[in-house]
Amino acid sequence: MSGKRFLGGALALLAGSASAQDNNSTLPVNFGMVLFPSFQAFDVFGPLDALNVLSMSYPINLYLISSTLDPVSTAPRSAGMNPHNSNFSQALVPTHTFEDAPALDVLMVPGGLGTRAGDLDPTIAYIADAAGEAEYVLTVCTGSWLAARAGVLDGKNATSNKASWAGREGLGNGTNWIAHARWVEDGNVWTSSGISAGIDMTLTWMESVFGNDTATSIANKLE
Amino acid sequence: MSGKRFLGGALALLAGSASAQDNNSTLPVNFGMVLFPSFQAFDVFGPLDALNVLSMSYPINLYLISSTLDPVSTAPRSAGMNPHNSNFSQALVPTHTFEDAPALDVLMVPGGLGTRAGDLDPTIAYIADAAGEAEYVLTVCTGSWLAARAGVLDGKNATSNKASWAGREGLGNGTNWIAHARWVEDGNVWTSSGISAGIDMTLTWMESVFGNDTATSIANKLE
Repeated sequence: MSGKRFLGGALALLAGSASAQDNNSTLPVNFGMVLFPSFQAFDVFGPLDALNVLSMSYPINLYLISSTLDPVSTAPRSAGMNPHNSNFSQALVPTHTFEDAPALDVLMVPGGLGTRAGDLDPTIAYIADAAGEAEYVLTVCTGSWLAARAGVLDGKNATSNKASWAGREGLGNGTNWIAHARWVEDGNVWTSSGISAGIDMTLTWMESVFGNDTATSIANKLE
Repeated sequence: MSGKRFLGGALALLAGSASAQDNNSTLPVNFGMVLFPSFQAFDVFGPLDALNVLSMSYPINLYLISSTLDPVSTAPRSAGMNPHNSNFSQALVPTHTFEDAPALDVLMVPGGLGTRAGDLDPTIAYIADAAGEAEYVLTVCTGSWLAARAGVLDGKNATSNKASWAGREGLGNGTNWIAHARWVEDGNVWTSSGISAGIDMTLTWMESVFGNDTATSIANKLE
C-alpha cells in the first residue's frame, strides 16, 4: 500500500476501515527507537508522541537505543551543516545501548543529517540484528537508508525522503524505491517519506495493528 | 487572526502573502522552551523541529529551561495517568534553569498533562518574568493555561486544547477564550490548540517574522 497524503489522508483511510486486531494477546508490547547524533527530531517525536498517547490505552514499553547512554543530540555534526553558527538543538536520554537493548516487537529508525555520517557501522549492525527479531520495522525519512544498509529492505518496496531522493541510490539489494509515496508498506516493513509523513504512517500502522477505533481516537487527540 | 486548519491551511496562507520582514537586524535570536515533568512531546518538538530547520538559514539559539538541569520526562506523574502500567516516555536535557536562563526574544510554553500538576508556581513565576522581556510568546495546547496563570493573557484573545476546553475556565484576567480557532494571535502573544496545531502556528508565526520564502521552504522540508 502506498500512503495517501498527510494526516487528512490518514484520517480518511481510518474512517473507512474496520478494526484489524481484536486479540490483545498478540499485540506488540516492546518498541525501540534507534538514536544517533544529528537525528531529525520530528522523525523521532512524530511517531513517539502518537505512541505516547497509545500507551495510555495499551500496555507498551519504549526503549531509546544508542551506542552509549550519553544524551544524543540533534545538533549538526559539522560546521558545514550549520552555516550560520546557530546553537539550536535538543538532546534525548537513551535508555539502552546497542549491547543491552531487549528484544523488540517494533523497531523504529529515524532519519536526519546524521544518517550521512561515516561512523554508523555499529548502528547498522544493531538494526540488522533487531530487525531480524522484530515483528515490525518502521523507518522515517532517511532512516530507510540505514535499514537498506542493514539488509532490511532487500527485495522490498520502500520509500525515503524526497528532498534527498538521490541518496538512496545503490542502497538495498533489489530494493524497489518508490518515489511517489508518502509511505510504503511491504510485509512487516514500513518506510515513510520525510519528517511529517512519519506520523501519518504511524497512525495508519496503528490502525492496522491496534484497530480503527484506537487510531482514530489518537489522531483526534493529536488534533 | 484565527488559524486555518492544519498544515495545508498554513501553506495556503503562506503562499498568498509577501515577505513580512526584510531587516535581519531586528529578527529574534534567542528562543526558550519551558520544560516541566509530563510535558506533551509533540507540543515541544513540532515547533522546535521547524525551528531546527530555520537554524540552518538564520543564526538562532535555543535554551531549554526547567527548574533544574535534570532530564525532564514526558512520563505520567501519577498511576492514574498510566492505567495500563506502560513504560513509555522520553527525557529531554535542559540547558538552563529558571534562575540562570538568559533573556529571551521568543518564549515558548508547551502543554501536556503536567500542566495540571500542583507544583508549578516556580514555572509560572518564570513564565511571567520571561514573557515581560520577550518580544514574542508562543504557547501550544494547555501551555496557554500556564501563560494565563502567569498573567500573560490578561485582556487578550487566546485559545487552548479543545479536548480539555473546560480547563481554561477561570484562567486569565479578562481573557477572551476563543473555542473555534486552531490558533489565535493577539499582538505578540500566539496561542494554539492541541498538539499538531502548534506546528501550524509556528510556521505561520515564522512567515510573519522571517518572511514567506523562509516559511514555505521550511514547510516543504518538513514534507
